[in-house]
Amino acid sequence: MDSDTPMAKNKPSKLKARLPRGFVDRSAADIRATEAMLAKIREVYERYGFDPVETPAFEYTDCLGKFLPDTDRPNAGVFSVQDDDEQWMSLRYDLTAPLARHVAENINEIQLPFRSYRAGWVFRNEKPGPGRFRQFMQFDADSVGAPGVQADAEMCMMMADTMEALGIPRGSYVIRVNNRKVLDGVMEAIGLGGEENAERRLTVLRAIDKLDKFGIEGVRLLLGEGRKDESGDFTKGAGLSDEQTERLLPVIMGFRVAVPKAEGSELPFDDMILNKDTGNFSDNVATCERLVAEATNDVEREGAEELLAISQLVSAAGYGTKRILVDTSVVRGLEYYTGPVYEAELLFDVTNEKGEVVQFGSVGGGGRYDGLVKRFTGRDVPATGFSIGVSRLMTALKNLKKLKADEVVAPVLVTVMDGDTASLARYQKMTQDLRAAGIRAEMYQGNWKKFGNQLKYADRRGCPLAIIQGGDERAEGAVQIKDLIEGARLAGEIEDNVTWRESRPAQVSIPEADIVATVRRMLAEQAEDRARQDGDAGATQ
Amino acid sequence: MDSDTPMAKNKPSKLKARLPRGFVDRSAADIRATEAMLAKIREVYERYGFDPVETPAFEYTDCLGKFLPDTDRPNAGVFSVQDDDEQWMSLRYDLTAPLARHVAENINEIQLPFRSYRAGWVFRNEKPGPGRFRQFMQFDADSVGAPGVQADAEMCMMMADTMEALGIPRGSYVIRVNNRKVLDGVMEAIGLGGEENAERRLTVLRAIDKLDKFGIEGVRLLLGEGRKDESGDFTKGAGLSDEQTERLLPVIMGFRVAVPKAEGSELPFDDMILNKDTGNFSDNVATCERLVAEATNDVEREGAEELLAISQLVSAAGYGTKRILVDTSVVRGLEYYTGPVYEAELLFDVTNEKGEVVQFGSVGGGGRYDGLVKRFTGRDVPATGFSIGVSRLMTALKNLKKLKADEVVAPVLVTVMDGDTASLARYQKMTQDLRAAGIRAEMYQGNWKKFGNQLKYADRRGCPLAIIQGGDERAEGAVQIKDLIEGARLAGEIEDNVTWRESRPAQVSIPEADIVATVRRMLAEQAEDRARQDGDAGATQ
Repeated sequence: MDSDTPMAKNKPSKLKARLPRGFVDRSAADIRATEAMLAKIREVYERYGFDPVETPAFEYTDCLGKFLPDTDRPNAGVFSVQDDDEQWMSLRYDLTAPLARHVAENINEIQLPFRSYRAGWVFRNEKPGPGRFRQFMQFDADSVGAPGVQADAEMCMMMADTMEALGIPRGSYVIRVNNRKVLDGVMEAIGLGGEENAERRLTVLRAIDKLDKFGIEGVRLLLGEGRKDESGDFTKGAGLSDEQTERLLPVIMGFRVAVPKAEGSELPFDDMILNKDTGNFSDNVATCERLVAEATNDVEREGAEELLAISQLVSAAGYGTKRILVDTSVVRGLEYYTGPVYEAELLFDVTNEKGEVVQFGSVGGGGRYDGLVKRFTGRDVPATGFSIGVSRLMTALKNLKKLKADEVVAPVLVTVMDGDTASLARYQKMTQDLRAAGIRAEMYQGNWKKFGNQLKYADRRGCPLAIIQGGDERAEGAVQIKDLIEGARLAGEIEDNVTWRESRPAQVSIPEADIVATVRRMLAEQAEDRARQDGDAGATQ
Repeated sequence: MDSDTPMAKNKPSKLKARLPRGFVDRSAADIRATEAMLAKIREVYERYGFDPVETPAFEYTDCLGKFLPDTDRPNAGVFSVQDDDEQWMSLRYDLTAPLARHVAENINEIQLPFRSYRAGWVFRNEKPGPGRFRQFMQFDADSVGAPGVQADAEMCMMMADTMEALGIPRGSYVIRVNNRKVLDGVMEAIGLGGEENAERRLTVLRAIDKLDKFGIEGVRLLLGEGRKDESGDFTKGAGLSDEQTERLLPVIMGFRVAVPKAEGSELPFDDMILNKDTGNFSDNVATCERLVAEATNDVEREGAEELLAISQLVSAAGYGTKRILVDTSVVRGLEYYTGPVYEAELLFDVTNEKGEVVQFGSVGGGGRYDGLVKRFTGRDVPATGFSIGVSRLMTALKNLKKLKADEVVAPVLVTVMDGDTASLARYQKMTQDLRAAGIRAEMYQGNWKKFGNQLKYADRRGCPLAIIQGGDERAEGAVQIKDLIEGARLAGEIEDNVTWRESRPAQVSIPEADIVATVRRMLAEQAEDRARQDGDAGATQ
């Protein structure tokens, strides 16, 4: 009926098909690769004893809270709508705040500690940019009702195991861990303690969080008056005095593992010495013992002692500094963290959009958020958890060539030579027979009259075989099966690399009753070829 | 830091943890069952040659169009927000309109016919009610660029195959198929043709769509002046005269399969005769031949002929009326359908919230929407597809007891007897060793001081085994392994049903080095028990 409306007929007024900025469609290859990746991550989380739990896309705005980095204005950064009863709802911007609401709402039924994971879309109402989307997927795991740092240690080990399960080699990633209390203690020591300085402390944390992005000079500006970027945009700084900044910097840099950037593919660490030039400690326990010894107040000491316990736990489980590394420059941008914070960083080099060789950087992180559930319940429900950025990790795996090529074989195409219902019924029957035998198959559904279009379709689609039956074949009870893979090879006359076998006939004529058996045999032959070629390719690399 | 704010400390002002109406959290069992169901559906779609393609949650509002049933006001029924540039965006209310946008936007790159599937959340800004959610999942498949009814026939067969792949027995479901043109023709014949009657035709279609819900008398009221429901709410009718209504009703009812409701579990059909009392045709081809013969104008005849072709195609592929049934009362509520429409209906009885025994009804449907892509491109891109309501289908499978009980075994619990870091490190190491061996395991992460709480946790969680090491065991290099399943059985003194084996010891003491091997053996024994019990249960049912 829609086609009868004047609008559809009137070309100039036709609608423009376009997506809002910051949103993207996903292709078959992307979806399949993501599913395979999520399955591997899920397997690790399950092995660690976590179970799935999911929340919906919407939450009441007040339940989400305002914990987004870089957006201090109310409602900035999130998509919000007002419900019929005038209450504001927002699309979740992460999976942690909704989990806190879920636990608080069901606190009497939930058995603590509550160990759960979830993958889901989150939404940010921000200015989109290259590689910066307004809808993206996170994959989280959380232990709620877990007061001890042993839970944070477990998270770090699980992140490390996840990286390796995805095929990222040891040495190409590292889980960095720190404790907010260490920096809180230093900030207290330089006069930034107390409620009245809460916002300034947050600005300091966010400045430090930019170390990878802007380098030490950039952080120094952000700690002071502020920083102007290349485009002329000015970010206001924390307004620290030079004295205050100088007290902060050594703490950040002193234990900072100054991983050299853009120095080719050599692994930046060995297990004992991280930076021979600076003499930095490379052993986590030794690092933390120094942190404890040098602490200037109780808060800093408490943070250092927690880091020390984490170091001892992971070390006892066999996780060296190549996998989990204490690094006091890690802060994480989110406001709700209260203790240990950790992030997974990929160490291999990529070329960014400006043509610079940089390290890939963070693909996820998290930390302890002891206050999030308490907002609702008023009682302490300590928790820790982390989030993996699924799209970013996918990009990383593509760079590492850890994503296998699409292994799903395209369907066998049953072509249509005659379009009368009786003929269509016969083609349809052949197709259903193949499907009933478990073989991916389809009858050509476009305009059948140009046969060339059908073979072009089969070619573009990557169909392995085409089944053809015209009037002559039908009279004989026969069908033609065209091997499109072999046909393409023969057409290309690729002579080398094929000496290992006789070439197959690219087209066979068989009795109609033998379709299923013949298709099955031909598909098996093609699969063998692929396996052999993969083997050849592997052997020569 | 959040815990320092006055709000968190001030109990009376604490936040209420609650979800907006119409949104729900999903449990582990629900998520696992859904994933298993989606995997089975996906397997059928893949076998039919469809590939995954997904679109994001947001679309520009004008791209979505206003095709929702029961909401003719602009923007009613959808969640919308205004972007920075003042353009309105909406959360998708189905997966069809976004697919049309996707195809139109990429029309030069996409090889037609384009066969794709997608599962995803959709959003309706409606008044929520029992079983009526504002976020729910659909699983769609579409052939775009498929002009012939053979594509519609394929969709019907794929829906039938999907029902059976999910374990719904033949006879407990039926795919009903109709053609909008048949009714369009009748409406034209009774003076409802032309652009000026477009809205009235839609009201008529929606009235007919309520046949299952309100019965023939309800539909008669909706076709006339209107209908008042039990709550007193009045729905305005199509305003047809008695003469017009009387012309319409026989067409709807004459070919309607009057499946008797609430008559126990007997299958309502056999393959040849559907309703012996009314003498309705039960053979699709015969039904359609009568429809063609009785057609009063070209539109009706075209619709009937298309239905006839569909009947011949599915019949030739061996799909009888028990699986796919021509039924002229099927209309589907969405405005964008232009030809064949079809729906999957489940025929078994359930008790509704009013305590009435009713048939389960529709779990999905679709049809041909030749105008949707044309809205953008101005050129014909005929398409057909259907949508499965994932939550509704899940409810149906629960009713049919086709969802297997949760098969994921809970993790082995490594308990914590001593909380000093050195002891924790040992427990953590045991846990990691189990995980490294592929065994689901966790160390207790709650407050370890009350050991009873740890066993209570293990019990509630359904943990199969608990590993215990106190000071004495540690001194001997030993651990205790407690078989919690066997322990519960012995504690319950369930004497019957266990004669088939000797009872196992519920607790063993073993050398620390043997943990992995012993745990593996005990888990295998438990798995054997479960398999045997399933076998016993199966044998006695």
